[in-house]
Amino acid sequence: MSQLKAVDYAAASPEVKAVYDEIKQTRQVEDVNNFWKFIAQHPPTLARTWDSLKDVMAPGALDPLIKELLYVAVSVTNNCGYCVASHTAAARRAGMTDEMFGELLAVVGMANETNRLAVGYRVPIDPAFE
Amino acid sequence: MSQLKAVDYAAASPEVKAVYDEIKQTRQVEDVNNFWKFIAQHPPTLARTWDSLKDVMAPGALDPLIKELLYVAVSVTNNCGYCVASHTAAARRAGMTDEMFGELLAVVGMANETNRLAVGYRVPIDPAFE
Amino acid sequence: MSQLKAVDYAAASPEVKAVYDEIKQTRQVEDVNNFWKFIAQHPPTLARTWDSLKDVMAPGALDPLIKELLYVAVSVTNNCGYCVASHTAAARRAGMTDEMFGELLAVVGMANETNRLAVGYRVPIDPAFE
Amino acid sequence: MSQLKAVDYAAASPEVKAVYDEIKQTRQVEDVNNFWKFIAQHPPTLARTWDSLKDVMAPGALDPLIKELLYVAVSVTNNCGYCVASHTAAARRAGMTDEMFGELLAVVGMANETNRLAVGYRVPIDPAFE
Amino acid sequence: MSQLKAVDYAAASPEVKAVYDEIKQTRQVEDVNNFWKFIAQHPPTLARTWDSLKDVMAPGALDPLIKELLYVAVSVTNNCGYCVASHTAAARRAGMTDEMFGELLAVVGMANETNRLAVGYRVPIDPAFE
Amino acid sequence: MSQLKAVDYAAASPEVKAVYDEIKQTRQVEDVNNFWKFIAQHPPTLARTWDSLKDVMAPGALDPLIKELLYVAVSVTNNCGYCVASHTAAARRAGMTDEMFGELLAVVGMANETNRLAVGYRVPIDPAFE
Repeated sequence: MSQLKAVDYAAASPEVKAVYDEIKQTRQVEDVNNFWKFIAQHPPTLARTWDSLKDVMAPGALDPLIKELLYVAVSVTNNCGYCVASHTAAARRAGMTDEMFGELLAVVGMANETNRLAVGYRVPIDPAFE
Repeated sequence: MSQLKAVDYAAASPEVKAVYDEIKQTRQVEDVNNFWKFIAQHPPTLARTWDSLKDVMAPGALDPLIKELLYVAVSVTNNCGYCVASHTAAARRAGMTDEMFGELLAVVGMANETNRLAVGYRVPIDPAFE
Repeated sequence: MSQLKAVDYAAASPEVKAVYDEIKQTRQVEDVNNFWKFIAQHPPTLARTWDSLKDVMAPGALDPLIKELLYVAVSVTNNCGYCVASHTAAARRAGMTDEMFGELLAVVGMANETNRLAVGYRVPIDPAFE
Repeated sequence: MSQLKAVDYAAASPEVKAVYDEIKQTRQVEDVNNFWKFIAQHPPTLARTWDSLKDVMAPGALDPLIKELLYVAVSVTNNCGYCVASHTAAARRAGMTDEMFGELLAVVGMANETNRLAVGYRVPIDPAFE
Repeated sequence: MSQLKAVDYAAASPEVKAVYDEIKQTRQVEDVNNFWKFIAQHPPTLARTWDSLKDVMAPGALDPLIKELLYVAVSVTNNCGYCVASHTAAARRAGMTDEMFGELLAVVGMANETNRLAVGYRVPIDPAFE
Repeated sequence: MSQLKAVDYAAASPEVKAVYDEIKQTRQVEDVNNFWKFIAQHPPTLARTWDSLKDVMAPGALDPLIKELLYVAVSVTNNCGYCVASHTAAARRAGMTDEMFGELLAVVGMANETNRLAVGYRVPIDPAFE
């Protein structure tokens, strides 16, 4: 028996269905992604994660495209294959062009490099940054 | 004897001084940050890193503020104290407000959380994202 | 020629077979997992890792279920696909229920989120925690 | 001017004070930790994080001590100094003994080691774990 | 439409072809690896990364075999599947034997373990190391 | 009361003293580093870690200097401040020159950068590396 279990809409509890419905309506999509179907194995995690993401990713001082770019940057740094795939797609839907994607990964690459140079050379924080 | 060694301007070789001068002129600052003074222990690393950063962080399809926000996101995820301090300061100089900073860290936090949920639930990539 | 090489029981040296036999007897299993068959390419690593794991995972002040939950938490945080799969299975054998698994991942997710908030806001350690 | 800014109770907005009051009452403490005072710079993050943590860390299928042990395991793996300090203290308050702490770190250490062995030897997932 | 896009030699721009040609000549290979074909989606990243790698991996105070061993060590620690596969192959071409590979992974494993013990026990730096 | 506790030689149990004595004799040092004094809070971890490190770091197919370089590379990638400081010192004692250190960090930096490029561009493994 597979240990990988998605909760499909048809088989979902009313509690889970309500979250799926809200995701579908908010994002204007036919079905929810695998991410939601898998975390729905634990309904409180599904509900809490959706509530939090809905708030955090909403337009604010940063617009949704920038927020998706940040999500990709973190997901790449953490090496999360699913997250890179899904948030790259989300960023493209939000307006990310090929050129933006290229620059995004260039920044992420350089940041990961210089982060390690700073650690390896044990650079003390400049007084101006304290 | 301390193992932590900065290369100050006065003691720098002509090769290192030339890089320092270019950084100071490009960024319009009085002196270079500790990061540069420490990696200057290995002059080829100093020159290569500056050349790369200058190109990667220049305005392009993404503007400098967005690039600095991405730098902070990676540095926070990697837990690099020096980098968080220096790039938060750089992002503020590029226009990051308190509200933007709050939203940036909220996105970084959520991305780190959902990255692990995706891994823990072993979520397979949706065909649409391949 | 594949670079991926498992050392199967039949082809194993007496030294490796002895470790396999001990694992099979201790864990009451028919065959050892791929993990052991791959690290057996370097017999000293096989022997040392088994000796260490046997001691560390034995019942003590923490019972084996808790230890497996901790193993899953670390493996998820490190994004190790093999380790998440094998230790989730091990945790289930040790008594982890679906509900426990859901709460485990919820804690792991929140810890990864708040770890980054603490780093991003550069929170100084409270004197009470020193 | 320091870039590190805590929001103390006296200077907090009513919205922030309300969260502080709930934390103090729930945890029966005189004052909130620095973590809360720093993330209070962005009130929505303060409120959302507290709401989530309150739910996730509540007694459930896993008791609070196990949840704190998991928090320490993740924080150590992520190398978050503040989080290791604060959650080690929290785990001790929840009942963690010196012996438990020693075993916890031994498991965390071994998990980090074997995670890398699995990656380095590129171990394929056993069919039984799929 | 697949989101995964390699830039093959035949379809490459003159700018990209020039980098491919230099890689093929320097490394004496028939074709470039997938790594180069994918980052070629952003030509400035291709050119910059090749220029940097060519310099950094050249023989110097450390010989190429040692540099490849270091690359494997970092790639394993970061859990980058592609990088582990490609740099393990590169290290073998540079002279890494099975025994060296076994010892390399043993060191990487132990370093990852003791890194976490140092963090978990919050070990202060010895004055002699400052 | 401080939560940071070193086990000094004078106050150590005979079991811990025996390990300290072996470390001092093997390494020809006057006293053991803080690392050992802190993990000695859990004597089985002290004994097991020393036994493992003694074996893993001994001369073999890789010489001690290369092993220390690998240790630094992992410690920098994991951002472990204590480990970077102590293993940089150990590598210098084993013969690492300033030039080697510069090249080591350059490789570590580039590896961290290209690891993320490979993940971000979702590069599939070349058949030749399987």
